[in-house]
Amino acid sequence: MAGKTVNKKCVVVLSGGPDSATVACWAKTQGYQIYPITFNYGQIAVKETQAAQKIAEKLGATTKIIDLSALKDIFSGTTSLVNRKIPLTAEFSAPIIVPFRNAIFLSTAVAYAVTVGAKYIFYGAQGSDEPYYPDCRRDFYEAFEKAARLGTDQEIIVRAPFSSQKKSYLINKGAELGVPFELTWSCYRDGEVHCGRCESCVNRKKAFQDAGVADPTSYEA
Amino acid sequence: MAGKTVNKKCVVVLSGGPDSATVACWAKTQGYQIYPITFNYGQIAVKETQAAQKIAEKLGATTKIIDLSALKDIFSGTTSLVNRKIPLTAEFSAPIIVPFRNAIFLSTAVAYAVTVGAKYIFYGAQGSDEPYYPDCRRDFYEAFEKAARLGTDQEIIVRAPFSSQKKSYLINKGAELGVPFELTWSCYRDGEVHCGRCESCVNRKKAFQDAGVADPTSYEA
Repeated sequence: MAGKTVNKKCVVVLSGGPDSATVACWAKTQGYQIYPITFNYGQIAVKETQAAQKIAEKLGATTKIIDLSALKDIFSGTTSLVNRKIPLTAEFSAPIIVPFRNAIFLSTAVAYAVTVGAKYIFYGAQGSDEPYYPDCRRDFYEAFEKAARLGTDQEIIVRAPFSSQKKSYLINKGAELGVPFELTWSCYRDGEVHCGRCESCVNRKKAFQDAGVADPTSYEA
Repeated sequence: MAGKTVNKKCVVVLSGGPDSATVACWAKTQGYQIYPITFNYGQIAVKETQAAQKIAEKLGATTKIIDLSALKDIFSGTTSLVNRKIPLTAEFSAPIIVPFRNAIFLSTAVAYAVTVGAKYIFYGAQGSDEPYYPDCRRDFYEAFEKAARLGTDQEIIVRAPFSSQKKSYLINKGAELGVPFELTWSCYRDGEVHCGRCESCVNRKKAFQDAGVADPTSYEA
Protein backbone atom coordinates (compact mmCIF):
# COMPACT_ATOMS: atom_id res chain seq x y z
CA MET A 1 0.00 0.00 0.00
CA ALA A 2 1.30 3.43 -0.86
CA GLY A 3 2.80 5.16 2.13
CA LYS A 4 2.64 2.10 4.35
CA THR A 5 5.93 1.35 6.06
CA VAL A 6 6.58 -2.30 6.78
CA ASN A 7 8.02 -2.79 10.24
CA LYS A 8 11.00 -5.09 9.83
CA LYS A 9 12.69 -4.20 13.09
CA CYS A 10 13.51 -7.24 15.18
CA VAL A 11 15.10 -7.83 18.54
CA VAL A 12 17.33 -10.90 18.49
CA VAL A 13 18.33 -12.58 21.73
CA LEU A 14 22.01 -13.15 21.04
CA SER A 15 23.68 -15.50 23.50
CA GLY A 16 27.06 -15.75 21.82
CA GLY A 17 26.48 -19.35 20.73
CA PRO A 18 26.18 -20.61 17.15
CA ASP A 19 22.38 -21.01 17.18
CA SER A 20 21.46 -17.43 17.99
CA ALA A 21 24.31 -16.15 15.79
CA THR A 22 22.73 -18.05 12.90
CA VAL A 23 19.30 -16.60 13.71
CA ALA A 24 20.72 -13.07 13.79
CA CYS A 25 22.55 -13.58 10.51
CA TRP A 26 19.47 -15.17 8.92
CA ALA A 27 17.29 -12.26 10.10
CA LYS A 28 19.68 -9.77 8.57
CA THR A 29 19.74 -11.58 5.23
CA GLN A 30 15.92 -11.66 5.33
CA GLY A 31 15.95 -7.87 5.41
CA TYR A 32 15.24 -7.33 9.09
CA GLN A 33 16.82 -4.43 10.90
CA ILE A 34 18.33 -6.25 13.86
CA TYR A 35 18.51 -5.09 17.49
CA PRO A 36 20.56 -7.75 19.28
CA ILE A 37 20.27 -8.09 23.03
CA THR A 38 22.55 -10.14 25.27
CA PHE A 39 22.18 -11.13 28.90
CA ASN A 40 24.55 -11.64 31.75
CA TYR A 41 22.55 -13.78 34.17
CA GLY A 42 25.46 -14.76 36.37
CA GLN A 43 26.62 -17.56 34.09
CA ILE A 44 30.14 -18.87 34.56
CA ALA A 45 30.57 -18.70 30.78
CA VAL A 46 31.34 -14.99 30.66
CA LYS A 47 32.90 -15.50 27.24
CA GLU A 48 29.37 -15.82 25.88
CA THR A 49 28.72 -12.11 26.20
CA GLN A 50 32.09 -11.22 24.70
CA ALA A 51 31.31 -13.55 21.80
CA ALA A 52 27.91 -11.91 21.34
CA GLN A 53 29.54 -8.49 21.11
CA LYS A 54 31.92 -9.65 18.40
CA ILE A 55 29.18 -11.41 16.44
CA ALA A 56 26.96 -8.32 16.55
CA GLU A 57 29.85 -6.17 15.32
CA LYS A 58 30.39 -8.54 12.40
CA LEU A 59 26.73 -8.03 11.53
CA GLY A 60 27.13 -4.26 11.67
CA ALA A 61 25.15 -3.95 14.90
CA THR A 62 25.79 -3.35 18.57
CA THR A 63 24.30 -5.77 21.03
CA LYS A 64 22.64 -4.30 24.06
CA ILE A 65 24.19 -6.09 27.00
CA ILE A 66 21.90 -6.23 30.00
CA ASP A 67 23.41 -7.12 33.33
CA LEU A 68 20.96 -9.36 35.13
CA SER A 69 23.73 -11.04 37.11
CA ALA A 70 21.69 -10.67 40.29
CA LEU A 71 19.66 -13.61 38.98
CA LYS A 72 22.55 -15.76 40.16
CA ASP A 73 20.98 -15.42 43.58
CA ILE A 74 17.96 -17.34 42.30
CA PHE A 75 19.74 -19.85 40.08
CA SER A 76 22.83 -20.77 42.10
CA GLY A 77 21.08 -23.29 44.31
CA THR A 78 20.05 -25.54 41.45
CA THR A 79 22.04 -24.81 38.33
CA SER A 80 25.55 -25.86 37.39
CA LEU A 81 25.75 -23.07 34.81
CA VAL A 82 26.11 -20.47 37.55
CA ASN A 83 27.49 -22.57 40.40
CA ARG A 84 30.80 -24.40 40.06
CA LYS A 85 30.00 -26.64 43.03
CA ILE A 86 27.28 -28.39 41.05
CA PRO A 87 29.01 -30.83 38.68
CA LEU A 88 28.67 -30.42 34.95
CA THR A 89 27.78 -33.43 32.86
CA ALA A 90 28.51 -34.46 29.28
CA GLU A 91 24.91 -35.48 28.77
CA PHE A 92 21.78 -33.61 29.57
CA SER A 93 20.97 -33.50 33.28
CA ALA A 94 18.54 -31.42 35.32
CA PRO A 95 21.16 -29.03 36.82
CA ILE A 96 21.92 -27.76 33.32
CA ILE A 97 18.46 -26.26 33.15
CA VAL A 98 18.24 -22.61 34.13
CA PRO A 99 14.53 -22.53 34.90
CA PHE A 100 12.45 -20.20 32.71
CA ARG A 101 15.56 -18.40 31.56
CA ASN A 102 14.26 -17.87 28.05
CA ALA A 103 11.09 -16.29 29.42
CA ILE A 104 13.12 -13.79 31.42
CA PHE A 105 15.18 -13.01 28.33
CA LEU A 106 12.15 -12.83 26.04
CA SER A 107 10.23 -10.59 28.46
CA THR A 108 13.12 -8.18 28.51
CA ALA A 109 13.46 -8.46 24.75
CA VAL A 110 9.77 -7.57 24.38
CA ALA A 111 10.27 -4.50 26.60
CA TYR A 112 13.22 -3.52 24.43
CA ALA A 113 11.15 -4.12 21.29
CA VAL A 114 8.42 -1.81 22.56
CA THR A 115 10.91 0.97 23.30
CA VAL A 116 12.56 0.77 19.85
CA GLY A 117 9.35 0.10 17.96
CA ALA A 118 10.23 -3.43 16.85
CA LYS A 119 7.50 -5.91 16.05
CA TYR A 120 9.55 -9.12 15.98
CA ILE A 121 11.49 -10.98 18.63
CA PHE A 122 13.67 -13.86 17.49
CA TYR A 123 15.60 -16.33 19.60
CA GLY A 124 17.81 -19.28 18.88
CA ALA A 125 15.89 -22.26 20.23
CA GLN A 126 16.30 -25.30 17.98
CA GLY A 127 14.91 -28.77 17.77
CA SER A 128 17.81 -30.70 19.30
CA ASP A 129 17.24 -28.86 22.59
CA GLU A 130 13.48 -29.09 22.44
CA PRO A 131 13.05 -32.42 24.24
CA TYR A 132 15.10 -31.25 27.20
CA TYR A 133 14.41 -27.54 27.56
CA PRO A 134 10.73 -26.67 27.82
CA ASP A 135 11.33 -22.98 27.13
CA CYS A 136 12.77 -23.90 23.73
CA ARG A 137 9.50 -25.42 22.53
CA ARG A 138 7.16 -23.94 20.01
CA ASP A 139 4.11 -24.36 22.25
CA PHE A 140 5.94 -22.32 24.89
CA TYR A 141 6.90 -19.43 22.66
CA GLU A 142 3.49 -19.33 21.03
CA ALA A 143 1.87 -19.03 24.47
CA PHE A 144 4.47 -16.45 25.39
CA GLU A 145 3.73 -14.48 22.24
CA LYS A 146 0.08 -14.34 23.22
CA ALA A 147 1.04 -13.04 26.67
CA ALA A 148 3.33 -10.48 25.01
CA ARG A 149 0.55 -9.17 22.78
CA LEU A 150 -1.90 -8.96 25.66
CA GLY A 151 0.65 -7.54 28.08
CA THR A 152 1.78 -4.75 25.75
CA ASP A 153 -1.36 -4.13 23.69
CA GLN A 154 0.88 -4.31 20.63
CA GLU A 155 1.29 -6.64 17.72
CA ILE A 156 4.33 -8.59 18.82
CA ILE A 157 5.63 -11.66 17.00
CA VAL A 158 7.89 -14.07 18.90
CA ARG A 159 9.65 -16.73 16.88
CA ALA A 160 12.44 -19.25 17.11
CA PRO A 161 12.79 -19.60 13.33
CA PHE A 162 14.65 -22.91 13.56
CA SER A 163 12.79 -24.51 16.44
CA SER A 164 11.78 -27.49 14.34
CA GLN A 165 15.26 -28.09 12.93
CA LYS A 166 18.19 -29.97 14.44
CA LYS A 167 21.28 -28.11 15.59
CA SER A 168 23.24 -29.57 12.67
CA TYR A 169 20.76 -27.94 10.28
CA LEU A 170 21.54 -24.57 11.84
CA ILE A 171 25.25 -25.19 11.43
CA ASN A 172 24.71 -25.90 7.76
CA LYS A 173 22.48 -22.89 7.38
CA GLY A 174 24.96 -20.74 9.28
CA ALA A 175 27.84 -21.92 7.10
CA GLU A 176 25.80 -21.02 4.02
CA LEU A 177 25.09 -17.55 5.43
CA GLY A 178 28.68 -16.93 6.46
CA VAL A 179 28.13 -16.94 10.24
CA PRO A 180 31.49 -16.32 11.94
CA PHE A 181 31.39 -19.56 13.93
CA GLU A 182 34.96 -19.00 15.07
CA LEU A 183 33.67 -16.12 17.19
CA THR A 184 30.91 -18.13 18.87
CA TRP A 185 31.14 -19.65 22.32
CA SER A 186 29.19 -22.70 23.55
CA CYS A 187 31.11 -24.00 26.57
CA TYR A 188 29.44 -23.78 29.99
CA ARG A 189 32.79 -22.99 31.56
CA ASP A 190 35.23 -20.10 31.17
CA GLY A 191 38.47 -21.70 30.06
CA GLU A 192 40.90 -20.34 27.51
CA VAL A 193 39.32 -22.68 24.97
CA HIS A 194 36.13 -24.76 24.90
CA CYS A 195 36.39 -27.64 27.43
CA GLY A 196 35.04 -30.18 24.94
CA ARG A 197 33.46 -32.22 27.73
CA CYS A 198 30.35 -30.40 28.90
CA GLU A 199 26.94 -31.10 27.35
CA SER A 200 27.09 -27.90 25.35
CA CYS A 201 30.56 -28.63 23.94
CA VAL A 202 29.51 -32.20 23.14
CA ASN A 203 26.44 -30.95 21.27
CA ARG A 204 28.49 -28.35 19.42
CA LYS A 205 31.08 -30.88 18.27
CA LYS A 206 28.42 -33.34 17.18
CA ALA A 207 26.46 -30.71 15.27
CA PHE A 208 29.49 -29.68 13.21
CA GLN A 209 30.26 -33.36 12.55
CA ASP A 210 26.68 -34.18 11.57
CA ALA A 211 26.54 -31.09 9.36
CA GLY A 212 29.79 -31.97 7.63
CA VAL A 213 31.03 -28.46 8.32
CA ALA A 214 34.62 -27.85 9.45
CA ASP A 215 34.60 -27.04 13.16
CA PRO A 216 36.80 -23.99 13.84
CA THR A 217 36.71 -24.59 17.62
CA SER A 218 39.70 -25.42 19.83
CA TYR A 219 38.67 -27.97 22.43
CA GLU A 220 40.66 -28.85 25.51
CA ALA A 221 39.45 -32.47 25.24
CA MET B 1 -5.47 -38.05 50.86
CA ALA B 2 -3.21 -39.68 53.41
CA GLY B 3 0.41 -38.74 52.95
CA LYS B 4 -0.33 -36.12 50.33
CA THR B 5 1.30 -32.80 51.09
CA VAL B 6 -0.54 -29.80 49.74
CA ASN B 7 1.85 -27.31 48.18
CA LYS B 8 0.90 -23.93 49.62
CA LYS B 9 4.17 -22.22 48.84
CA CYS B 10 3.71 -19.00 46.93
CA VAL B 11 6.00 -16.37 45.51
CA VAL B 12 4.53 -12.88 45.94
CA VAL B 13 5.80 -10.00 43.84
CA LEU B 14 6.09 -7.34 46.53
CA SER B 15 6.58 -3.84 45.16
CA GLY B 16 6.35 -1.95 48.43
CA GLY B 17 2.97 -0.44 47.53
CA PRO B 18 -0.35 -1.07 49.28
CA ASP B 19 -1.75 -3.43 46.62
CA SER B 20 0.96 -6.06 46.72
CA ALA B 21 1.26 -5.66 50.51
CA THR B 22 -2.42 -6.55 50.75
CA VAL B 23 -1.95 -9.55 48.45
CA ALA B 24 0.97 -10.80 50.56
CA CYS B 25 -0.99 -10.34 53.78
CA TRP B 26 -4.06 -12.00 52.27
CA ALA B 27 -1.95 -14.96 51.06
CA LYS B 28 -0.51 -15.43 54.51
CA THR B 29 -3.93 -15.40 56.16
CA GLN B 30 -5.08 -17.94 53.55
CA GLY B 31 -2.42 -20.30 54.85
CA TYR B 32 0.15 -19.85 52.10
CA GLN B 33 3.84 -19.98 52.91
CA ILE B 34 4.99 -16.75 51.30
CA TYR B 35 8.23 -16.11 49.42
CA PRO B 36 8.20 -12.38 48.64
CA ILE B 37 10.35 -11.07 45.81
CA THR B 38 11.11 -7.41 45.10
CA PHE B 39 12.72 -5.78 42.09
CA ASN B 40 14.95 -2.84 41.58
CA TYR B 41 14.48 -2.01 37.89
CA GLY B 42 16.12 1.38 37.99
CA GLN B 43 13.05 3.17 39.31
CA ILE B 44 13.53 6.60 40.86
CA ALA B 45 11.28 5.46 43.72
CA VAL B 46 14.00 3.58 45.60
CA LYS B 47 11.88 3.80 48.74
CA GLU B 48 9.68 1.09 47.23
CA THR B 49 12.25 -1.60 47.87
CA GLN B 50 12.89 -0.37 51.40
CA ALA B 51 9.15 -0.43 52.01
CA ALA B 52 8.93 -3.97 50.65
CA GLN B 53 11.63 -5.11 53.07
CA LYS B 54 9.78 -3.67 56.04
CA ILE B 55 6.44 -5.11 54.95
CA ALA B 56 7.96 -8.57 54.48
CA GLU B 57 9.50 -8.38 57.94
CA LYS B 58 6.12 -7.52 59.44
CA LEU B 59 4.79 -10.65 57.78
CA GLY B 60 7.60 -12.74 59.26
CA ALA B 61 9.33 -13.18 55.90
CA THR B 62 12.35 -11.85 54.07
CA THR B 63 11.86 -10.47 50.60
CA LYS B 64 14.36 -11.49 47.99
CA ILE B 65 15.54 -8.27 46.43
CA ILE B 66 16.72 -8.72 42.86
CA ASP B 67 18.76 -5.95 41.34
CA LEU B 68 17.67 -5.59 37.74
CA SER B 69 18.66 -1.92 37.66
CA ALA B 70 20.38 -2.45 34.32
CA LEU B 71 16.87 -2.43 32.86
CA LYS B 72 17.05 1.32 33.23
CA ASP B 73 19.06 1.21 30.03
CA ILE B 74 15.96 -0.08 28.23
CA PHE B 75 13.33 1.98 30.01
CA SER B 76 14.97 5.39 30.38
CA GLY B 77 14.14 6.55 26.87
CA THR B 78 10.39 6.26 27.31
CA THR B 79 9.45 6.10 30.96
CA SER B 80 9.17 8.86 33.52
CA LEU B 81 9.46 6.32 36.35
CA VAL B 82 13.16 5.86 35.67
CA ASN B 83 14.02 9.15 33.95
CA ARG B 84 13.54 12.48 35.72
CA LYS B 85 13.71 14.37 32.45
CA ILE B 86 10.37 12.94 31.37
CA PRO B 87 7.66 14.87 33.24
CA LEU B 88 5.38 13.06 35.65
CA THR B 89 1.66 13.63 35.40
CA ALA B 90 -1.17 13.57 37.91
CA GLU B 91 -3.32 11.56 35.54
CA PHE B 92 -2.46 8.49 33.57
CA SER B 93 -0.17 9.14 30.60
CA ALA B 94 1.85 6.84 28.38
CA PRO B 95 5.28 7.67 29.91
CA ILE B 96 4.08 6.17 33.20
CA ILE B 97 3.94 2.76 31.56
CA VAL B 98 7.04 0.62 32.02
CA PRO B 99 6.47 -1.72 29.10
CA PHE B 100 6.02 -5.40 29.99
CA ARG B 101 7.44 -4.79 33.45
CA ASN B 102 5.10 -7.24 35.11
CA ALA B 103 6.12 -9.96 32.66
CA ILE B 104 9.78 -9.46 33.53
CA PHE B 105 8.90 -9.60 37.22
CA LEU B 106 6.60 -12.60 36.82
CA SER B 107 9.15 -14.51 34.71
CA THR B 108 11.72 -14.05 37.41
CA ALA B 109 9.14 -14.94 40.06
CA VAL B 110 8.41 -18.17 38.18
CA ALA B 111 12.13 -19.01 38.10
CA TYR B 112 12.27 -18.35 41.84
CA ALA B 113 9.15 -20.48 42.37
CA VAL B 114 10.75 -23.39 40.53
CA THR B 115 13.90 -23.20 42.63
CA VAL B 116 12.00 -23.13 45.95
CA GLY B 117 9.31 -25.57 44.86
CA ALA B 118 6.43 -23.08 44.97
CA LYS B 119 3.37 -23.67 42.84
CA TYR B 120 1.73 -20.25 43.12
CA ILE B 121 2.79 -16.80 41.99
CA PHE B 122 0.71 -13.87 43.17
CA TYR B 123 0.99 -10.24 42.18
CA GLY B 124 -0.85 -7.08 43.09
CA ALA B 125 -2.59 -6.03 39.89
CA GLN B 126 -6.02 -4.59 40.63
CA GLY B 127 -8.99 -3.41 38.65
CA SER B 128 -8.42 0.35 38.86
CA ASP B 129 -5.16 -0.08 36.93
CA GLU B 130 -6.56 -2.57 34.45
CA PRO B 131 -7.81 -0.11 31.81
CA TYR B 132 -4.42 1.58 31.59
CA TYR B 133 -1.83 -1.14 32.18
CA PRO B 134 -2.21 -4.15 29.89
CA ASP B 135 0.07 -6.33 32.03
CA CYS B 136 -2.35 -5.93 34.93
CA ARG B 137 -5.19 -7.62 33.06
CA ARG B 138 -6.55 -11.06 33.70
CA ASP B 139 -6.28 -12.13 30.06
CA PHE B 140 -2.59 -11.24 30.20
CA TYR B 141 -1.77 -13.20 33.34
CA GLU B 142 -3.82 -16.17 32.21
CA ALA B 143 -1.84 -16.28 28.94
CA PHE B 144 1.34 -15.81 30.94
CA GLU B 145 0.39 -18.68 33.25
CA LYS B 146 0.03 -20.95 30.24
CA ALA B 147 3.48 -19.90 29.02
CA ALA B 148 4.84 -20.53 32.52
CA ARG B 149 3.44 -24.04 32.64
CA LEU B 150 4.73 -24.88 29.17
CA GLY B 151 8.08 -23.20 29.73
CA THR B 152 8.83 -24.98 32.99
CA ASP B 153 6.93 -28.25 32.53
CA GLN B 154 5.47 -27.65 35.97
CA GLU B 155 2.07 -26.91 37.38
CA ILE B 156 2.37 -23.18 37.97
CA ILE B 157 -0.53 -20.98 38.98
CA VAL B 158 -0.26 -17.22 38.36
CA ARG B 159 -2.88 -15.00 39.94
CA ALA B 160 -3.62 -11.40 40.75
CA PRO B 161 -6.23 -12.25 43.40
CA PHE B 162 -7.80 -8.78 43.31
CA SER B 163 -7.58 -8.05 39.61
CA SER B 164 -11.32 -7.57 39.31
CA GLN B 165 -11.60 -5.27 42.36
CA LYS B 166 -11.00 -1.55 42.61
CA LYS B 167 -8.02 -0.20 44.52
CA SER B 168 -10.35 1.07 47.25
CA TYR B 169 -11.55 -2.52 47.77
CA LEU B 170 -7.96 -3.58 48.43
CA ILE B 171 -7.53 -0.77 50.92
CA ASN B 172 -10.61 -1.96 52.77
CA LYS B 173 -9.47 -5.56 52.60
CA GLY B 174 -5.98 -4.58 53.72
CA ALA B 175 -7.34 -2.57 56.66
CA GLU B 176 -9.37 -5.62 57.69
CA LEU B 177 -6.27 -7.84 57.46
CA GLY B 178 -4.06 -5.40 59.36
CA VAL B 179 -1.77 -4.47 56.46
CA PRO B 180 0.81 -1.96 57.75
CA PHE B 181 -0.14 0.74 55.23
CA GLU B 182 2.08 3.24 57.04
CA LEU B 183 5.06 1.25 55.77
CA THR B 184 3.96 1.19 52.13
CA TRP B 185 5.23 3.53 49.42
CA SER B 186 3.36 4.56 46.26
CA CYS B 187 5.04 7.76 45.05
CA TYR B 188 6.94 7.64 41.74
CA ARG B 189 9.53 10.00 43.19
CA ASP B 190 11.98 9.68 46.05
CA GLY B 191 11.14 12.55 48.37
CA GLU B 192 11.17 12.49 52.15
CA VAL B 193 7.40 12.01 52.01
CA HIS B 194 4.93 11.14 49.22
CA CYS B 195 4.71 14.00 46.70
CA GLY B 196 0.91 13.83 46.58
CA ARG B 197 0.86 15.01 42.98
CA CYS B 198 1.92 12.10 40.77
CA GLU B 199 -0.62 9.66 39.33
CA SER B 200 0.31 7.03 41.88
CA CYS B 201 -0.05 9.40 44.85
CA VAL B 202 -3.36 10.69 43.46
CA ASN B 203 -4.67 7.12 43.12
CA ARG B 204 -3.45 6.25 46.61
CA LYS B 205 -5.17 9.24 48.21
CA LYS B 206 -8.39 8.59 46.33
CA ALA B 207 -8.44 4.89 47.23
CA PHE B 208 -8.16 5.62 50.97
CA GLN B 209 -10.88 8.27 50.64
CA ASP B 210 -13.19 5.98 48.66
CA ALA B 211 -12.57 3.15 51.11
CA GLY B 212 -13.31 5.35 54.10
CA VAL B 213 -10.06 4.21 55.68
CA ALA B 214 -7.82 6.69 57.50
CA ASP B 215 -4.82 7.44 55.28
CA PRO B 216 -1.60 7.26 57.32
CA THR B 217 0.44 8.89 54.53
CA SER B 218 2.24 12.24 54.73
CA TYR B 219 1.88 14.06 51.42
CA GLU B 220 3.92 17.06 50.38
CA ALA B 221 0.89 18.45 48.49
